[in-house]
Amino acid sequence: MILENIRSPQDIKNLTQPEVDILIGELRDTVIRTVARTGGHLASNLGVVELTVALHRVFNSPDDKIIWDVGHQSYIHKLLTGRKDRFDTLRQYGGLSGFTKRDESEHDPFGSGHSSTSISAAVGIAAANKLAGKNDYTIAVVGDGAFTGGMIYEALNNCADKDHLIIILNDNEMSISPNVGGISRYFRRFRISPRYFKLKHFIKRFFSATPLIGEGLIKITRKAKNRIKRLLVSENFFEVMGLNYYGPVDGNNERQIELVLNEAKRENKCSVVHICTKKGKGYSFAEEKPDLYHSVGGFDIETGEIKNGHTKTFSEYFGEIMVKAGKRDEDICAITAAMCAGTGLSGFAQHFPDRFFDVGIAEEHALTFAAGLASQGKKPVFAVYSTFFQRAYDQLVHDAALQKLPVILALSHAGLVPNDGPTHHGIFDVAIVNSTPETEIYAPECFADMDYAFEQAFKAARPVIVRYPKNSPEEYDRSIFKPADGMYLCDFGARPEVSIITYGKITKNALLAAAELYQKGIQTRVIKLVKIKPIEFEKLNELTGNTGYIYLLEEGVKSGGVSESVISAFAEQGYLFNRKVKIRAIEDQFVAHGNGELLYRDLGFLPEQIAAEIELFLQNENPS
Amino acid sequence: MILENIRSPQDIKNLTQPEVDILIGELRDTVIRTVARTGGHLASNLGVVELTVALHRVFNSPDDKIIWDVGHQSYIHKLLTGRKDRFDTLRQYGGLSGFTKRDESEHDPFGSGHSSTSISAAVGIAAANKLAGKNDYTIAVVGDGAFTGGMIYEALNNCADKDHLIIILNDNEMSISPNVGGISRYFRRFRISPRYFKLKHFIKRFFSATPLIGEGLIKITRKAKNRIKRLLVSENFFEVMGLNYYGPVDGNNERQIELVLNEAKRENKCSVVHICTKKGKGYSFAEEKPDLYHSVGGFDIETGEIKNGHTKTFSEYFGEIMVKAGKRDEDICAITAAMCAGTGLSGFAQHFPDRFFDVGIAEEHALTFAAGLASQGKKPVFAVYSTFFQRAYDQLVHDAALQKLPVILALSHAGLVPNDGPTHHGIFDVAIVNSTPETEIYAPECFADMDYAFEQAFKAARPVIVRYPKNSPEEYDRSIFKPADGMYLCDFGARPEVSIITYGKITKNALLAAAELYQKGIQTRVIKLVKIKPIEFEKLNELTGNTGYIYLLEEGVKSGGVSESVISAFAEQGYLFNRKVKIRAIEDQFVAHGNGELLYRDLGFLPEQIAAEIELFLQNENPS
Repeated sequence: MILENIRSPQDIKNLTQPEVDILIGELRDTVIRTVARTGGHLASNLGVVELTVALHRVFNSPDDKIIWDVGHQSYIHKLLTGRKDRFDTLRQYGGLSGFTKRDESEHDPFGSGHSSTSISAAVGIAAANKLAGKNDYTIAVVGDGAFTGGMIYEALNNCADKDHLIIILNDNEMSISPNVGGISRYFRRFRISPRYFKLKHFIKRFFSATPLIGEGLIKITRKAKNRIKRLLVSENFFEVMGLNYYGPVDGNNERQIELVLNEAKRENKCSVVHICTKKGKGYSFAEEKPDLYHSVGGFDIETGEIKNGHTKTFSEYFGEIMVKAGKRDEDICAITAAMCAGTGLSGFAQHFPDRFFDVGIAEEHALTFAAGLASQGKKPVFAVYSTFFQRAYDQLVHDAALQKLPVILALSHAGLVPNDGPTHHGIFDVAIVNSTPETEIYAPECFADMDYAFEQAFKAARPVIVRYPKNSPEEYDRSIFKPADGMYLCDFGARPEVSIITYGKITKNALLAAAELYQKGIQTRVIKLVKIKPIEFEKLNELTGNTGYIYLLEEGVKSGGVSESVISAFAEQGYLFNRKVKIRAIEDQFVAHGNGELLYRDLGFLPEQIAAEIELFLQNENPS
Repeated sequence: MILENIRSPQDIKNLTQPEVDILIGELRDTVIRTVARTGGHLASNLGVVELTVALHRVFNSPDDKIIWDVGHQSYIHKLLTGRKDRFDTLRQYGGLSGFTKRDESEHDPFGSGHSSTSISAAVGIAAANKLAGKNDYTIAVVGDGAFTGGMIYEALNNCADKDHLIIILNDNEMSISPNVGGISRYFRRFRISPRYFKLKHFIKRFFSATPLIGEGLIKITRKAKNRIKRLLVSENFFEVMGLNYYGPVDGNNERQIELVLNEAKRENKCSVVHICTKKGKGYSFAEEKPDLYHSVGGFDIETGEIKNGHTKTFSEYFGEIMVKAGKRDEDICAITAAMCAGTGLSGFAQHFPDRFFDVGIAEEHALTFAAGLASQGKKPVFAVYSTFFQRAYDQLVHDAALQKLPVILALSHAGLVPNDGPTHHGIFDVAIVNSTPETEIYAPECFADMDYAFEQAFKAARPVIVRYPKNSPEEYDRSIFKPADGMYLCDFGARPEVSIITYGKITKNALLAAAELYQKGIQTRVIKLVKIKPIEFEKLNELTGNTGYIYLLEEGVKSGGVSESVISAFAEQGYLFNRKVKIRAIEDQFVAHGNGELLYRDLGFLPEQIAAEIELFLQNENPS
């Protein structure tokens, strides 16, 4: 094993080429074996093995800074930068993150998780180096999918005056789903013109060899050269932005990448290196179906069988709702930001291709585009993960809510998204939408709630957010609930002394806590909300009856969440008179990655923790 | 007067060319005269007179939909679409908005205020038209400045399959400040190659004239033609994105614009029409200094003298702080998103050009770029209007806060921004940052507070937001305040029965209300906060002393704001026992445009309204 002896990137610099080839095989093996067990991103990591090795041979991390866009393709980088002994802890609680992370290693200069941020960060780092008079390189590795996100262009527009900055365009013809739009077609044109690179390369070399005569003539000669070059080879988008362009080169050929990287290194301005890689490279199942193996929960190495739960997920159920709604109402349209399958929209896309829009990783555009559709009487549903919706906050406020346009946001992955961690938890959406006027929020925690929420959403005359968890509904008997005007009640005992108000996935834990408390002789009333904005506070107060204690349980950030609105409204209305209140929500902190139960424990969300807290809460002297 | 008789766009369609020329003069005159009095955007409107007239002669609004990016250049459009009789109410309370607005006219199909949204909205409208089988045109008018914003590229990436969609690139070589970056250089190249358009035009015509022979041959012939065309004329960025490109043409020549618009109309795919206009055209003072006349508060027509208050603004004082800080500490960097003068950074830019970065209208990039700088030990300060910061919400969460990077956000225009209205009020920043972990917020309302806030900010090890109003501090004697650990106290009477907790600009109104109440025998204590996150609730409670009533006054949205956090924390801590609370903040609503006092009245923020409300509040039976 060569990998065995790699403690830091220095250790691969002096390997012979045959050794490098062996190492590449070992790295691929390690990733396949580990991800088969831990789950995670597979295809993208298999695609960048050669690139990662070449980067670490040509550059000197951590002095040179390598920034991985999204960071889901950084597994090889982790293996080569001193983290291989902990690699089997990938995505586990306390273990390595599935993305890059500053806390984790000096070789991760900038963390990630969301798309299209890497060039902006790299421009910042390159600018800091320049100010400090350092000659270190900054390298951003960006997939072609990320090029559908607007931030990339904002950043490219600020690259021209940065030297020692290299952008690797990792073109694998797809992000999570096959890539869409004009940019994708543009890249494809380069891929199919292999001679493009060679021709340009030749012309460049030829002109570099021509000597420049005398100081005074240099500028004129350069200009003349540039004019000739432009005549011979039309400039591409990157070049007109003032950047060097190299490519496309075979991104699964380690030697070739080293060559071109070394060339880019010698330039004294910002370069774009366009490499073409094969997603899933080296694992036949993943090569054939890279989208299926983009992010997996674990799989069988021999058969390629992906371990999936067999219970229906919220996203799948959302997909069914959409197909039904689409048949009933021709105005309903569906929008995804490069997450057709992940958001459950494949069925809708098949049934109603004209009304289905995959806009690329472009959440901002998606929301305003939806508002545009809504302005003409269409009923657009933008399906997006809660955490990625954060990108479109201003567009929700400025384009949809302010104009009272009935855009529906179907936010999946609401609440914790355990193994992905802090960049992916959907814990902020309620707070930010709560403070956005003219909006409604529903938080279903079972399929019946989903039906109700979307029924309301399709009728609304302003933006509606329906937020629901990743995976499937918790299993428990929901017939214990008594419906009460869109709220749900369940008493544990005839004379409850505490009301537990909650919503979403964590409702089950509230019920388990209530059951535990009942065993101890403490009677509770659990109130589940489905519509969480606006809340009819008077009605909710009625439901809390005579309970002297009110406990609010929220799987989301506390500030601006449902709990604070309820307490604040109750206090203003005088409903808190002679009562005590307590909130259990996510305090002013980010939440780590790892097993859901362990994260719940950290947050005090386990049933036994909730029960203990309520017991203690009640031991406070009774309000007089 | 020809304008006199223009009741709708139909009325200009049959004008003779000399009449059109007269109308253009009249429109220019009307805008100059009105804006001189009402204030507003001048230079940009003077630049698009010919364009607007041409658009309404060539297209049929409201069936064809014209969308103005940002909307600050829509004055001529308003004059031509039935709003001329109300034009003198521009930006006044109850009058016309300074931007486009759906409520205002059927000719405003999509409202605006923030940059770079128009193409996204237009793509949505075009898609809706296609689904409805309509052949109406959708036209987005976008300044070259907006092309530094990422949303434009997200939208362009989704244009290729839309027909009847026309994008006007209104190139005036600047947005608010002279334009920056690679894109701007790219556009400049077209401007200086006037023959580009003619050559392409010729080639196009030539090939169109060549007959296509037989059904079966059409495709092949087209392909061959395209190949030849590509050989002759290299494609530009828009063309490689799959769009038609026309330009550049003289955007202040009405006839020429009509010509090219009619040509674009005949295409059966999405076209980009690149026109070059002169900002301030027709008013010499504005032509010479378009940045000065971009947005004005009123001016003297004869002398060009701009009416400015002479008291120092918060932004100017911020600029002074930055220059001092920059001298003291070489790590301090300043970033603006195309608002160098508006944010007060001109001085810093002059003194420290290496550490000053104008990134274009690119708030998302700006924040992540700042985080990149901070990751290398720099101390970046991103100065931006509160409302435009909304664009960078996800970047604050994901790139700065999560990584605990000490980025400072200097948010000007916090609170109401009266005449600009709902798209520009800075009333959401507190709520959304409150719910962002690992952040601090300061809300200075005078220059001493500014000093304190930035002193704290420069020392912090995580993102800090300093938010301050537009214009200058309110004038009143601040020595009445007793400092108390970063909070400020002022008693009206020896035994106050109500505490008024507030922060920011509205503090003065709290004091005026307290004075009024004192006259009526009601004693109050006013507590002003400068640090509003995190708040030391125990200390704050101590400050409220024995007051049985707590009144919270907040010039910001209620949900997630300071008031809710205070009440919620007080309730949980048991501080509300036997007390009553009331919040006066902005409920779940957007706030109109107009005179600040009138907006305050709508919101119940006037001193007499506050006093009356507190009086009523105290008449509630005393808490037992």
